[in-house]
This record gives sequence, structure tokens and C-alpha cells, in this order.
Amino acid sequence: MLGRSALISVQSAQKILTDHLADVTVTSETVALIDGLDRILAEEIVSPENLPPFDRSTMDGFAVIAADTYGASSSMPAYLNVTGEVEMGKLPSGTVVRGGCFRIPTGGIIPDGADGVVMLEQSVPIDETMIEITASVAAGANIMRAGEDIRKEQPALAAGHLLRPQDIGLLAALGITQVRVAKPPTVAVISTGDEIVAYTSEVPPGKIRNSNGPALAALVRRAGGRPVDCGVVSDDETEFFAIIEQAITANDCVIFSGGSSVGSRDLGEKAVERLGHPGLLVHGVQLKPGKPILIGMQGAVPVFGLPGHPVSAQVCFELFVAPTIKTLMGRATSCSSAEPTLRAELTRNINSAAGRMDVVRVKIAGHEGSYKASPVLGKSGAISSLTQADGYFIIAENVQGCTAGTTISVYLYR
Amino acid sequence: MLGRSALISVQSAQKILTDHLADVTVTSETVALIDGLDRILAEEIVSPENLPPFDRSTMDGFAVIAADTYGASSSMPAYLNVTGEVEMGKLPSGTVVRGGCFRIPTGGIIPDGADGVVMLEQSVPIDETMIEITASVAAGANIMRAGEDIRKEQPALAAGHLLRPQDIGLLAALGITQVRVAKPPTVAVISTGDEIVAYTSEVPPGKIRNSNGPALAALVRRAGGRPVDCGVVSDDETEFFAIIEQAITANDCVIFSGGSSVGSRDLGEKAVERLGHPGLLVHGVQLKPGKPILIGMQGAVPVFGLPGHPVSAQVCFELFVAPTIKTLMGRATSCSSAEPTLRAELTRNINSAAGRMDVVRVKIAGHEGSYKASPVLGKSGAISSLTQADGYFIIAENVQGCTAGTTISVYLYR
Repeated sequence: MLGRSALISVQSAQKILTDHLADVTVTSETVALIDGLDRILAEEIVSPENLPPFDRSTMDGFAVIAADTYGASSSMPAYLNVTGEVEMGKLPSGTVVRGGCFRIPTGGIIPDGADGVVMLEQSVPIDETMIEITASVAAGANIMRAGEDIRKEQPALAAGHLLRPQDIGLLAALGITQVRVAKPPTVAVISTGDEIVAYTSEVPPGKIRNSNGPALAALVRRAGGRPVDCGVVSDDETEFFAIIEQAITANDCVIFSGGSSVGSRDLGEKAVERLGHPGLLVHGVQLKPGKPILIGMQGAVPVFGLPGHPVSAQVCFELFVAPTIKTLMGRATSCSSAEPTLRAELTRNINSAAGRMDVVRVKIAGHEGSYKASPVLGKSGAISSLTQADGYFIIAENVQGCTAGTTISVYLYR
Repeated sequence: MLGRSALISVQSAQKILTDHLADVTVTSETVALIDGLDRILAEEIVSPENLPPFDRSTMDGFAVIAADTYGASSSMPAYLNVTGEVEMGKLPSGTVVRGGCFRIPTGGIIPDGADGVVMLEQSVPIDETMIEITASVAAGANIMRAGEDIRKEQPALAAGHLLRPQDIGLLAALGITQVRVAKPPTVAVISTGDEIVAYTSEVPPGKIRNSNGPALAALVRRAGGRPVDCGVVSDDETEFFAIIEQAITANDCVIFSGGSSVGSRDLGEKAVERLGHPGLLVHGVQLKPGKPILIGMQGAVPVFGLPGHPVSAQVCFELFVAPTIKTLMGRATSCSSAEPTLRAELTRNINSAAGRMDVVRVKIAGHEGSYKASPVLGKSGAISSLTQADGYFIIAENVQGCTAGTTISVYLYR
């Protein structure tokens, strides 16, 4: 049994884990650009060319020599001869000379000679071949220069970056059709406990269904990993140790969620204690729910023994396993992935013991600027408390509870 | 060309769209529970049974008759005979009688006769068959009652709910192996413009690659839809109208992003104007970037003409297309999906014209409680401004700009 005194803080446990993951090598694979969505870049992408590839007009109007427009106004317009036209998607033919201009559409290539674009709205047609310019434009006006969006040889996206829709757009614009991304780590998901049966089976009296297995597999998928369902294993030492060994050999990460009985917990502890080098790393943390978490590593494979209670298992997953899966993919942390983002007003008092981190599930109501967070209470075995929640907040070790009306920072489930 | 006076507000446009989508029917399909992750429930799920299915102990200890413990303390313990043991996953045999108790593990079934559980920590073994109880327990103590997590016939999850990992866990616990979920709407993605070529092709001089197509396809996927790539179509009226017709017939939603030239824009307008009933709904909104958006509907199929500039196209997608895809799946809006969640301090002044909604992309720095948001500026044709941003904030129609130091609410890209 774990005494409070032997436990370490969540932060210390995270640091021990991070330190041991420092040398892990990211394995990668090449996929078609469009399949790169939501994957992690395994290498920096340097722009192979200028974007845009040529000077483009950002307006419909006339490509001019800016000096020809200086001093122009509605009362004192400049007159220019329309000596050519730029067609979309075609190279302009000819050169703009002093006193002349080319008609140009938005996105059209700036013709030789021209150094500015007068907006259509600042021109008045005189006849087919002449216009009045009613405003002065500076050199470079209404032009996007070649390479202004991104320059050739400039880093476009960093290794470890999560590919979002806009990133796919940028890479398409650069003509990059394949990307090297991290392989999703395979994560073995094992459920133990003599009382547990597969959720797809008939349930004999006294047994309960395996709900942690499918929930953890889904969490693995959300974190970017590939869950490998190892089913339900009984609390038999020989059988359990064999499955763990096998899972370590075949996967990048192993998680098991223990049964709730003493025997089941003892077995989990033994399994982590007997791992090869570096072995047992964390044996219980100052956390509620989630205190009895076990973390170990054999070679480069992290092994997590999660508590059997569904709520505790999910909390431990968010705090320890999800960051590990991201590290195994070389993911750079970003604001949107790792931070509590929503500020809300707590609707009731919540107690918490000093020296322990509490993770409290909340339901959010209200709108921008006036969110309210109501704790979803329930025994840690209550699965429905998780399904009713929109997210959670953390009461730090050095804080004894939170009072109603306090503004808290909520991590949202998405 | 669109004059400011003819434009309507973003909110009005959203309302017109929502009203027209009110009668859309959600089509659904049945999938295995584990494949239900991130899908939208098409029907309410009512619990088929009690969870837990029986009264369970939440502690390791002894199942007792609470009255036998009344008044017990360390100095004045109660003595009980250990007359049985509950094994994990098995029905208890025998009944607890006055003066007796059964050993019970966490999760074990409460045996007949017992109405409370004494924690192991509040007992002292005398010998193999007798214990001291050092604290009084109330009836019901340390017991989770059958149905306490969720009762038989109680609604477990509502129609329109997005299935998250914890929801998968709950349904597994209830023995639900299949779920009826919304079919992902198929969304045709068409790119137009004489200057555009497929991003996988060679780029002749003067042309640029189709970056909106892949970016929009990725946005469709993120929103829960299934993108159907219709490639690049030239600004030829016959060809373009034929592709649009075909796309409407074969899909649940159609989006095209126009070329930047006047001709291309005119063609897009014509295409939406000639839609069958109810036809053109929105022709330009008071929005920057994104003003020239076109929204129409033919029968039950919404058609969106997005501006050609990548930034404008993505802004219009977030404001109009993403909510439409969610509506087509019957998704209930939730806090985590539809609200600006991060409060941050703006690092510089941003101007905005009155009467127009401005969407400003920002990069986030800092940590909880002190986030800073720096606008990522760039011409709306600049794709890199999107890839550098972590999210965006909105300057409302009735506000003229934001000054540095203001606290803003940011919608995070994930």
C-alpha cells in the first residue's frame, strides 16, 4: 500500500519521465501531403522556392510607373495611355514605359517597367486607350513581391510542428506533395482484473465490463498514437507478466489499467518493479484521483500502470501518457495543446488536502467573458462524471481548496 | 463589385443560413463502438441497465452491518467475527449477520445482510477470525449502489453529442457495442481560376498552385465532413456551371474558391445566382477578410463561394462552412467547439473600420494567466500569416479597432 510520505509530486514525476524520454528517437515515414493532416512533421521544411513566385498585383487596376502618378488627384488627374493588358495566368507581353500603363487583374504578374498598381477605383476611363489617374501611388503600391509571403531557402515549418489545414495549404502552394512525418507510436492497451470481461461479451454475475480498455484506446488515438488492443488479462502472475513482456517487445509504449483489488494492484506493482533497465521510475504520486500510478521503462519503452477507476485512469493518461505519446513523435508543445485555456468562475467550494494535486472535473455554462464552471462530483469509479464534464481544472499541491467565485483556468476536453 | 451599403452583417448572414438549414435531415449509419470516436451521435442513448450492475464496495475492507459499528473508536473498538470473504468477480456466498462481517476487496459485491463497508485502515486483526473496528460507519458507507453511476432507462448521452474517449468508455461499460452516428456529409471542393494549376503538377510561367483546395479539404475533414476533391476548373462558364451542377447532385454541400480576377469573381456570382430554389442567400458580408463570400442553396444542398485569397477563404470557412457541416450532422454545440476560449493581452494597436467585423490572426506567447497575443499581419493573400498564427480574435462591427493592452478573447486553432 502506498503511504502519503513515499509519494512524489506530479511535477517531479513528470520531470523524471521527461528526463528518461530525452534520448528517445522519433521514427518517421513519408506520406502524401493531404494525408499529413494532424500528423507531426519529422523534419524542418525549407521553402524550395519563392512564394509568390513572381511580383503580383493585389488589386484590379493598372500597372504603372509610380513616378507618373506623383501629385495626381481628382482635381488634377494624371493621364496615362493604356498600352497593354495582363491576362490572368499568363506572362505579360511588352514593357510599361513612361506615360503608359497596363490593365491588370488581382493576382496578375507585374509587367516589366511597372513599379506600382493604381486601383481601378482611383481611375477614370477617358476612352479605350486612355485613363485618368485620380491619386498618387508610391513605388511598390498594391504589389506583393516575389518571395514576400515566404522566401526561397527560408524555413517554412519546423520539425515537431502539428500539420493543420493552413499548413497543408502553404505546403501545397510550395509544390510539396509529400511530407516526412512521425510514425504514430504503437501503444499496447492491457486491462487486468479477475472481475473484468470484454465489453463485447456476456457478463456473468459479479463481473463487470472492460470500459477502461476502449476509453484508453480512444485517448491514445486522440493523442496521435495507434492503440493496440491486448484485451483483458486475468490476475494470474505468469499470464500477466508474459503479456507485458510481449507488449514491450512489439510496441513503442505499454499501458495497463489494473483491477481494483489488492491482488490486482500488487500484481501491477510487481510487473513494473521487475522491468529491465531503467526499470521502475515512479511509484505513486500526490494526486487525486490517480495516486497509485506506476511508471516504468524497459529500454526505450515506457510502461504505465494506471489505476483501475476510470476517472483516475483518464486523469493519469492526460498528465503522463498523452505527453509521452507526443514526445515519442517529437511534437513541439504549442499553446493550444498543452495549456488550460478557459477562465471561468467556480460555482461552489471545493476542498483539497495540502500537499496533493487535485484534478476536478467541471461542466461549463455561460458565454464569452462570463463562463461558470460547476464541479461534476462523483466517486472516482463513476464513469458518468467524466461524460458530464466539459473539462477539468487543477488545484495545486500548495493550495487547500478553492472557494466559490474564484476564477479558475480550465483544460477543455475537445 | 460589392458596395459596402449592400453588405449585411456576419450575424445576419449566419442567421439566414441557419434558418435555411433548419429542415435539413441528418443521415446516419451504424458503426462499431470503437469507430464511434469523434463522431456525432444520431440518436439518444438510454442506459439499457444499471451501472454498476450491483452494489459494490469502493474500498478494501470489511462488509458489515453498520449498526454493529456505532460508537466504535480506537479506544473503544467494536469486535466482529470474520464469517466470510467476497472474491473479486464472484457472487458472495452466505449472508452477513449481526456481530459478523465479510472481508471485501474494492469493487467486490456487497454480500446480503451488509449495509456498510469498514476500510481496512480502520480495522485491526485480532486473529484469523476476529477483527477490531476502530471507527463507526454509517449505513451506505463506502458502497456504490447499483445504478448510482447511471440508472437503467436513464438517458446516458444525447443525440447530437460528439463521442469523446470517456463517452466510449461509458458505452462500453453499458455493453453497447454499436452506435448510430451521423454520416459525414460529403463536401465537394472546387477551385477555380485561369491562373490556378493542381499543386501536384508542373507550374507553367504565370500560373500558381492550387493551395486553397487542399487547405479547404483539410478544414472539411477537421469539421467532420468528407471532402470530395473536384480539382481545378477554368473560368469557362459552361465547364464551371456543369461542374457545380454535378457537385450539387452528388454531394451534401459544395464549396468553391474563386480566382482573384474580376472574371472569375463574376463567374462565381453567376453560378450562385442561377441556383434553383431557394437560390442565392447571401451576397457579401461586412467582414475583413472575407467580404465577397457568396452563400446559396439548391434544394437541401448549401453552396459556398469563398474568396480566392487563402486567408479570406479560411476565415469564411470557420464562420460559415464549419457550422454548416456540424448542422448537417445534427451536432449540438458545445463550449469547447464554438467559443473563443483564451483570454490574452493584445500587444499592439489594431485598426478596424466601424460597421465591419474584422478577424485578426494572432500568435500566442506566455503562460497561464499572462498570455500575450501578437497580431500576425500580412496581406490577405499571404498564406504564411495563417501558418504563423495560433488562433484569431474578432473585432465586432460596432468597435473601431483595439488598443495595445486590451484583453481579447482568442479562438484557438488546434
